[in-house]
Amino acid sequence: MTDTIEQALAEIKFDRDGLVPAIAQQHDTGEILMVAWMNRDAVRATLTEGRACYWSRSRATLWRKGETSDQVQLLRELRLDCDGDTVLLLVDQHGVACHTGRRNCFFRAWRGGDWVVTAEPQISPDTLYPQRTD
Amino acid sequence: MTDTIEQALAEIKFDRDGLVPAIAQQHDTGEILMVAWMNRDAVRATLTEGRACYWSRSRATLWRKGETSDQVQLLRELRLDCDGDTVLLLVDQHGVACHTGRRNCFFRAWRGGDWVVTAEPQISPDTLYPQRTD
Repeated sequence: MTDTIEQALAEIKFDRDGLVPAIAQQHDTGEILMVAWMNRDAVRATLTEGRACYWSRSRATLWRKGETSDQVQLLRELRLDCDGDTVLLLVDQHGVACHTGRRNCFFRAWRGGDWVVTAEPQISPDTLYPQRTD
Repeated sequence: MTDTIEQALAEIKFDRDGLVPAIAQQHDTGEILMVAWMNRDAVRATLTEGRACYWSRSRATLWRKGETSDQVQLLRELRLDCDGDTVLLLVDQHGVACHTGRRNCFFRAWRGGDWVVTAEPQISPDTLYPQRTD
């Protein structure tokens, strides 16, 4: 398993910080849920555990999506682009992807010379992160 | 117009290289076509001209998608994620997005311990880029 995953990692071009951007897309609807970053350990964990694991740049730690919010992303398939420097995760999102409580993070649209909010939260962030103090 | 676009730019968090990742998604099917990078001038050009313009990191120049291949991406809407560091372009892709001649760049899937090619070119790269010598 480990050797196999090394083979997967060998095709991914991580940047000078050891990171690669990862898009999470809902596998059946095509909705783009979020973009985060992965290092080698995050890719390993994602493939081994079958759920999205990212690298949190702000907290400098592995971030298993849903570990505090239960909003996990079950992996359906991992894809790689032509030049190997962007990863696409086809996932099954449980609940919402965005920390604001919205289904996806891309809820601001540039329309008529202004940023317009296109979606409302489906759940309160206080419910998602009851122990957060920030 | 210029002032308005400055207002759009003010919400985008460019990284230390002055860049932000941009996903191009086919507006009606949800297909993720490609990921590239934009600097402030690329965002300006995209909004002003109504077609995707990126920053080519390898050539260090603005890159109007389709300028040599005719495979332009007409902009339908520009979106921004919750923390402002990723842009989503909803586009109408003319022809194919990938330089390999495939419709999109994410044609490698990790399946059964191997990278599997999931799509074939729809057009030869030689036809797309007749003057390319590399």
